[in-house]
Amino acid sequence: MSRPVVLACLESPHFFWRLSAIQTDALRAAFPGVDFRVATTETVPDQLPGAHVYFGWRFDSSWFAAAPDLRWIASPAAGTDHLPIAEAEAAGIAVTRSYGFHGRPMTEHAMGLILGFSRGLFTSARLQQTEPWWKDDLVDDFFDLAGATMTIVGCGSIGSHLARAASAFGMHVIGIRRNPPSRRASGITWMPPDQIYQAVGAAQVVVDLLPATADTAGFFDRATFAAFRPGALFLNLGRASTVDHAALLDALDSGALRGAGLDVTQPRPLPLDDRLRRHQHVVLTPKSATLSRTYMNDAVAFFSDNLQRHLTSSPLNGLATTRIAAL
Amino acid sequence: MSRPVVLACLESPHFFWRLSAIQTDALRAAFPGVDFRVATTETVPDQLPGAHVYFGWRFDSSWFAAAPDLRWIASPAAGTDHLPIAEAEAAGIAVTRSYGFHGRPMTEHAMGLILGFSRGLFTSARLQQTEPWWKDDLVDDFFDLAGATMTIVGCGSIGSHLARAASAFGMHVIGIRRNPPSRRASGITWMPPDQIYQAVGAAQVVVDLLPATADTAGFFDRATFAAFRPGALFLNLGRASTVDHAALLDALDSGALRGAGLDVTQPRPLPLDDRLRRHQHVVLTPKSATLSRTYMNDAVAFFSDNLQRHLTSSPLNGLATTRIAAL
Repeated sequence: MSRPVVLACLESPHFFWRLSAIQTDALRAAFPGVDFRVATTETVPDQLPGAHVYFGWRFDSSWFAAAPDLRWIASPAAGTDHLPIAEAEAAGIAVTRSYGFHGRPMTEHAMGLILGFSRGLFTSARLQQTEPWWKDDLVDDFFDLAGATMTIVGCGSIGSHLARAASAFGMHVIGIRRNPPSRRASGITWMPPDQIYQAVGAAQVVVDLLPATADTAGFFDRATFAAFRPGALFLNLGRASTVDHAALLDALDSGALRGAGLDVTQPRPLPLDDRLRRHQHVVLTPKSATLSRTYMNDAVAFFSDNLQRHLTSSPLNGLATTRIAAL
Repeated sequence: MSRPVVLACLESPHFFWRLSAIQTDALRAAFPGVDFRVATTETVPDQLPGAHVYFGWRFDSSWFAAAPDLRWIASPAAGTDHLPIAEAEAAGIAVTRSYGFHGRPMTEHAMGLILGFSRGLFTSARLQQTEPWWKDDLVDDFFDLAGATMTIVGCGSIGSHLARAASAFGMHVIGIRRNPPSRRASGITWMPPDQIYQAVGAAQVVVDLLPATADTAGFFDRATFAAFRPGALFLNLGRASTVDHAALLDALDSGALRGAGLDVTQPRPLPLDDRLRRHQHVVLTPKSATLSRTYMNDAVAFFSDNLQRHLTSSPLNGLATTRIAAL
C-alpha cells in the first residue's frame, strides 16, 4: 500500500476556523506514516491527484474529476447539506461530518437567547435608550427558568448537552427523537415525534435542532405552532427548512409566541425588509451558534480519531454517505 | 403572654410581590396561636398599635410612634438600605432582611447578561435591523464561557449560587469575600479583598455583588478597573454605590472593558442623557435581577421559618440590626 496522502484545505481569516501550522505539525507527528499536504482553495484541484483523504470546509463538485484516488471527504462542520453527498456516493467516496463538540457553544448560544428573553434583557437593551424607567414593561413578560419546561426537537448529542445546562437551571426537559435511547439520560423525558403536539404544548421553551431532511421540511407549521403553550418561546438553531416562516410570523404577530431566537433563516441572509428583522420579539443571529475559539482544535481531534479508524479499516464516525461505511 | 400579633403589609400590582389570601390563610393555619392582621399602606399606622411583628416591604420612620409593642420588622427584600435601621435599633426593634432565594433569579439574570455579551446577542439584536449580514461583526468579540474565569466580588450565598451555574458552563470561579469559608465550596477559589487586583486581572467576567456599606463605596474605582484583564466584562447586580461610574465609563470608552451589564445605577433611574444609556457596550436592567414569579412564596417561607424562631426565642435569621439579636 502506498503512503496515505491527506490533503487539507482549511482556510479562514479567523484562527479558530483555519488549520494552523502547529495543528498540521501535530497531525504529522501523530501519524508519521501519513503524507499530510496543505492546499489553498485555489490549489486544491492541482493537489487532489494522489490524495486519498480530503479534510476541508467545502468540496466543489468540479473537483471530483481531479480526484481519482480519493476515498474520503472529511468536513469539520456539523452539517453536510453544503457537500456533494450524492456525487461522492456515486464515486465510492465516503463523506463525514464532525460532531461531539458543537454542543458546548450551541448550548451557550441557546441559553443566552432563552435568558435574554426570559429576563427581559433584549427588551431592556432597547428601552434603556428612551424610557425613564421600564420595570413595568418587564414584569408581565419575564419568566423563571427554574420549574419551566424545555422541549428539544431533534434531541441528539447537541440536544443532550443543552438538556444538561437546562437541568442545571432547574428546567424540566422533554426530548423528541425518532429513536430515543432506551434509558433515561440526563433527566430527559423522551417522546416520539408523533407526540410533538403534546411535547410543545407542555413547554415554555421549544428548541428546534432538527437536521435538514425530506422528513423535517416545514416540520414547524401552522398546526405545530397552534399546539404551542400560549406565550412560549421558540428557538431554531438547526436548519431553516424545518420551519414554515409565514406560520412563525403569524404566531409571533398574534402573540401566541412570546418570541423567537433564530440562528438560521431562509433565505440567508434575510432581505432587509423581511418582517422578522424588525420584529420586537425576534432576535436573529448570523449562524453564529457554533462560534467557538476552540473550534479547529476540536475538529482536528475529531478528524484524528477518524483518521486512525480509516488507517485501521474501522468504520468512520459521522458518515453522511449511507452506502459507503468502511473504507 | 398575650397572643402575638403579626401585621402584614405586602401590596403590589403584581401577584408575585403581594401577599395573597391563600398565603395569609396558610400562615394562619401554620401558626394557630398567632393573630395575623393584614394592612394596606394607608392603614398601617392605625393597625400598628398592638402589633408585635411587622412583615412588609417598607417601614416609614413616622410609624414608630404608633408602634409601642413592635419588636421585629421583617422585610421580604434582600437589602435593608431602604429601612430605618438606626431608628429601629434605638427603639429596641429587630430588623431582618430575607435571603436564600434571590440567588436563583439573580443567577439567571447574570448568566443571561454574560451570555448576551459573550455570544454577541445584544450586538445581533441591534445589527439584525440594518446589516445584511453581521457575522464578521461578532467573530472578533465573542468568547467561550467554557475555560473562562468569573470573579465574583462579594461572594456570599447569591454568589455561590451563581458560581454553581458558571461551573456548569465550564467556567473557573474566583470568589472574593472578607471571611471566606474554610473549605472549598462549589469549586470556588477564594481570595481575600486585598487580592482584588489579581482576582479581577485573572477574569474574563467580573460580577459585583457587594452590599452597600461604608467600606464598599466606590470599591470599583479607576485603579480597580485598570487591573482588569483587557476586554473583560463587568456586571453589577449589587449596589450602585460600589462603582465609580465615571471610571466605569472611561474604561468602557477606552475599550479596556468589553462591556457592562448594570442592574443598579446611581442615580436611579439614570437621566435620559446619561452616556451609559446609549453606550453600545452597556446593557441596563431596571433593578430586575431578582424578578421571580415565586418571590412571595419564597419570602413567606423565609418569614415562616423566622417567625417560628421568634416564637421559640431563637435568634432570627437575616438580622440587619446588630445590637438586637434575639427577642
